[in-house]
Amino acid sequence: MPSLGRSTPLPAELSIPLDRASGEPLAVQIADAVRTAASTGQLRRGDRLPSTRTLATTLGVSRSVTAAAFEQLHAEGWISGRHGSGTYVTTTPPGSPVTGRHSGQSTVDTPGLIDLVPGSPLADGIDPAAWRRAWRLASDVDPLIRPIGAGLDSYRAVVAEHLLRHRGLVVGGTAVPEDAVLATRGTTAAILEICLAILKPGDLVAVEQPGYFRAVGALQAAGMRVIGVPVDEGGLRVDLVPAEVKAVYCSPAHHFPLGARMPAARRVALVERARSENWLIFEDDYDGELRYDVAPLPLLASLAPDVVVHLGTTSKIVSPTLGVGWMVAPNRVNEPVLELRERTSTAPSAAGQLVMVGLARTGDLGRHLRRLRRELAARREVVFAALTASGVQVDGDDAGAHVMVPLPSLDREERIVAAARERGLHLAGLAEYYMDAPTQHGIPVSYAGCTGAQLHTALPILCELLG
Amino acid sequence: MPSLGRSTPLPAELSIPLDRASGEPLAVQIADAVRTAASTGQLRRGDRLPSTRTLATTLGVSRSVTAAAFEQLHAEGWISGRHGSGTYVTTTPPGSPVTGRHSGQSTVDTPGLIDLVPGSPLADGIDPAAWRRAWRLASDVDPLIRPIGAGLDSYRAVVAEHLLRHRGLVVGGTAVPEDAVLATRGTTAAILEICLAILKPGDLVAVEQPGYFRAVGALQAAGMRVIGVPVDEGGLRVDLVPAEVKAVYCSPAHHFPLGARMPAARRVALVERARSENWLIFEDDYDGELRYDVAPLPLLASLAPDVVVHLGTTSKIVSPTLGVGWMVAPNRVNEPVLELRERTSTAPSAAGQLVMVGLARTGDLGRHLRRLRRELAARREVVFAALTASGVQVDGDDAGAHVMVPLPSLDREERIVAAARERGLHLAGLAEYYMDAPTQHGIPVSYAGCTGAQLHTALPILCELLG
Repeated sequence: MPSLGRSTPLPAELSIPLDRASGEPLAVQIADAVRTAASTGQLRRGDRLPSTRTLATTLGVSRSVTAAAFEQLHAEGWISGRHGSGTYVTTTPPGSPVTGRHSGQSTVDTPGLIDLVPGSPLADGIDPAAWRRAWRLASDVDPLIRPIGAGLDSYRAVVAEHLLRHRGLVVGGTAVPEDAVLATRGTTAAILEICLAILKPGDLVAVEQPGYFRAVGALQAAGMRVIGVPVDEGGLRVDLVPAEVKAVYCSPAHHFPLGARMPAARRVALVERARSENWLIFEDDYDGELRYDVAPLPLLASLAPDVVVHLGTTSKIVSPTLGVGWMVAPNRVNEPVLELRERTSTAPSAAGQLVMVGLARTGDLGRHLRRLRRELAARREVVFAALTASGVQVDGDDAGAHVMVPLPSLDREERIVAAARERGLHLAGLAEYYMDAPTQHGIPVSYAGCTGAQLHTALPILCELLG
Repeated sequence: MPSLGRSTPLPAELSIPLDRASGEPLAVQIADAVRTAASTGQLRRGDRLPSTRTLATTLGVSRSVTAAAFEQLHAEGWISGRHGSGTYVTTTPPGSPVTGRHSGQSTVDTPGLIDLVPGSPLADGIDPAAWRRAWRLASDVDPLIRPIGAGLDSYRAVVAEHLLRHRGLVVGGTAVPEDAVLATRGTTAAILEICLAILKPGDLVAVEQPGYFRAVGALQAAGMRVIGVPVDEGGLRVDLVPAEVKAVYCSPAHHFPLGARMPAARRVALVERARSENWLIFEDDYDGELRYDVAPLPLLASLAPDVVVHLGTTSKIVSPTLGVGWMVAPNRVNEPVLELRERTSTAPSAAGQLVMVGLARTGDLGRHLRRLRRELAARREVVFAALTASGVQVDGDDAGAHVMVPLPSLDREERIVAAARERGLHLAGLAEYYMDAPTQHGIPVSYAGCTGAQLHTALPILCELLG
């Protein structure tokens, strides 16, 4: 097999040896050949692969075969790239192919970079055997289960149990009533549909600044006017929310991206203003499951279930493949949302819910979450120790999947992001989380979206650049 | 086990014998007990079951266990009912539990009725072994596949192949380019997002009247003004579409619910007006896969890919559980839709796409569609023969999953629907498909949403009522 030049289409004379009589699916054979080439150095990091279409023609197979092979390689972290901009060989995954991941998911194209940008699902994700068990259970359910506006009852029951056990969500001293739990497509999608269902175009909604830009995108897509409110070490500055807002979006468990946790007194102040000024609160429980050493503070949804929409998702803690999350809201929110879903056939897909139910039923969900917390707590310690030993200031509450490194200026922030990119690390500066000109500077460093081996590679570089 | 009175909660002394040491999941044991009670007559049609919560308390199991048991029973057709309005025992499914279905999916609560309302997925659905194989293949993919705005490449390739093979979709003499195919949440959800992405609130959109009310719901949710245009035996009256519309929604393959097929000349007239008056056409390919004896007419998307959004879904031909469909549209539509999905994190869930890819990869998809067409063609013949033998006029093209029985008045339509309900049949009159006062009367009769045995039961009643 000849070595492949950088950015060169796979030459027609390269033989990916397909054995059509072997019974091994062709997609598996193609993926095997590419893995072998990457492992043996015949393909190197940055080498460009041909399109699935070209490869299909070259090999005389259907395009769905090559697409399946590439998807598997992508998922395993061997290749990356986005549709239209080419597919590249990444760093060879360090461990088993199954625990690898692709790094090209962010808004920029990052072939071969180690992903340290917050918001990624966890690279050392769910145990593949547990995953298969859950899908097998899901496939035992009759194929004629229709999407149900509120979500499947079994899924809502799993979520209610999860919220009680892992988030301490109690209302009036007891577990949240299941009727208050709705399945969603995910946190951002839920914000969109809630705005479409109960707010009016032009309504003003406050968001944290810096903050989670996808929430802003959803609010704007629904026609909302959005205003940024500053964030300090206690999270959203509740006192600075303008009185005329109709809703407030915040992430009190672990502010995205600064890492602050909203203290109890401010939580009370927030729900009191919401009640007296008739705001709806979106409580994005970002990283809520990931607390390591301190007892959780009461959820806003526990303090004030009458004005709070509590939002969570499976996408980071379990898998983005499922495409399901949840909301817990008062009836005056749930009912219009259910009507909207009925009118527009936008009930969340049942498939992902069924897999989540399967995971819960086998007990794998609990085991996975415990392992996740252990692993991330250990990584957090390693990152914290390495950075502070190099004299780097590290902020952020002892929780979640990233730490925050404050910096004195935008210029320094931008130079470090650029230098890190040169050295193979993908970082995002705090400026990317502002709608307006940034007032704080720094870099959030995620330790969840890369493999342990990648983190090990990245840390000395980070210490050098930030120290 | 004592007999259970109608509408009485399951008494606490009723023993559903749970053997916690057997290794058999508790949900399976509960479902078994209810099946046995229903099979032996201890539970009868119309008997009300306790809530899953009450049953969980009674049996000392978690609520997710009872919910799982009920979901399975629901899917198998043993029970029906909607959340909040109680769960009822239905007619015992005639065949294997796996081929049964629940009949409570429509907007009215129809415990125990045989479902003859168009729009249901096919009761004798996909082969359970094929279904399990597809999920198993789907679970082989790494859990860290993220939702991709356009859909998974492998899914888009499967759809492109499907559209070429089963719908003859060619553009400029060749198969549709895959880049033009986007995964969707389903037809109605796609209409919603397209309107949000490229139309403006207040824009006028024409729909067929009578027609598919969920499309109207989606258009209105996106802020569109909707105007109904009459339908004749050639489908949408293109000449009656007002010039000021921005878009036209239609179902040319098989009008829903009248059953008309739009002839070629009218298709040409439609796309010519769309081009010269700058309309976007939503081509809902409703029942497009279900043609029995005539060659398909060219799709609008083949005639005019520059102005047509072609919409299809897996929900009826494969399974509503997947929650995925597709759209084929020009770039000026696809690009804003992808931007909207990016901003709002509303990429279609990957889980259902992976299952569909699994079905295609094993060849089960093709086998299933061939079997479906055979089965529905046979049912159509039986229904047509029985009704015409009783002197009933039957309209509608030789396609799809329902026939149309015209009636002289709204009064007669309503009386027949009411009488059918008394006799255990769930029908919907044509009036339900009008936004305004109906100008045509009749009853569409679906032969897809019930089992073969149920159809056999229903036909003599239908002939008597309609004859």
